Amino acid sequence: MMKKSVMKEVSSAQAFAAFHPEHAVFVLSVDRQGKPNGMAAAWNMKCSEEPPMIAVAVEKGANTHKLISESREFVIAVPNKALEKGLLFFGSSRGSEVDKFGETGIRTMKARHTKTPLLADATINFECVLRNAVDAGDCTLFIGRVVASYANKGKRVLMYRGRIGGKRVFEEF
Amino acid sequence: MMKKSVMKEVSSAQAFAAFHPEHAVFVLSVDRQGKPNGMAAAWNMKCSEEPPMIAVAVEKGANTHKLISESREFVIAVPNKALEKGLLFFGSSRGSEVDKFGETGIRTMKARHTKTPLLADATINFECVLRNAVDAGDCTLFIGRVVASYANKGKRVLMYRGRIGGKRVFEEF
Repeated sequence: MMKKSVMKEVSSAQAFAAFHPEHAVFVLSVDRQGKPNGMAAAWNMKCSEEPPMIAVAVEKGANTHKLISESREFVIAVPNKALEKGLLFFGSSRGSEVDKFGETGIRTMKARHTKTPLLADATINFECVLRNAVDAGDCTLFIGRVVASYANKGKRVLMYRGRIGGKRVFEEF
Repeated sequence: MMKKSVMKEVSSAQAFAAFHPEHAVFVLSVDRQGKPNGMAAAWNMKCSEEPPMIAVAVEKGANTHKLISESREFVIAVPNKALEKGLLFFGSSRGSEVDKFGETGIRTMKARHTKTPLLADATINFECVLRNAVDAGDCTLFIGRVVASYANKGKRVLMYRGRIGGKRVFEEF
């Protein structure tokens, strides 16, 4: 028997928690000296096929926010299970305090058009040139034109299932 | 043994195809007479917690594009397995030619703030007031302030896995 529908008003926080899984990705950027930085971001989406474009929401206080605004480029690297620990570390530490790449051993590789590197062991890398930056509450939406795409054949995509029992849970698809 | 990493440049279409699953949702809107309309959209994301906001990419030619631009409101209804056929129908037919709600038997219910209805049997409904509309290639990003959220407890979330063997594949999470 089908479960009866009982649509009830809930807080936006409860509804946001129910609205999973989502793509937790690495957002990579560089500073003026070309030093790479990275963060984890779960709010991102394709937003155009022709030309190919991707949007990512970045908190206004994040260092990545400043770097993308200045360099006008970014890379979205879609992780797999092997990058889960690195993603958590990138998402919970500050580039001004630790060398995120050194600590995690995450390997980068040169991109074709941007100074921002790719992640060598990601499943997909999207090299993006900033087209627009739009205010959206506590975040800015960075809208990037995808200027090159890369894939690691056979690797799967890690998704974020949300906090379950207080713990961040990820799963590969 | 871990699979060796071989990051290769691919077309954006190939990279977009690999970047799944995604949230295929109903985007609901109303015309000036209050007649509801709906479409399927896989490109959407949360973009702010405080205030709560959601962004959705809508093709510029879609009727929904015109209606959201005029009414400055929309509802995002997150489906479950029971709404899969309806979602496919909404995604492949035109509201000007068929009565999508009548044909699918999808039940609506009154929202609290907007004229746009909710879907009674969805897993989550987000009632949104348009805050910003931003050009992004072949789509416009509609950024909405979530003014009310609703959930149907116990129901799961349908995700779009992409085209597999030429067929659109969905799965519940």
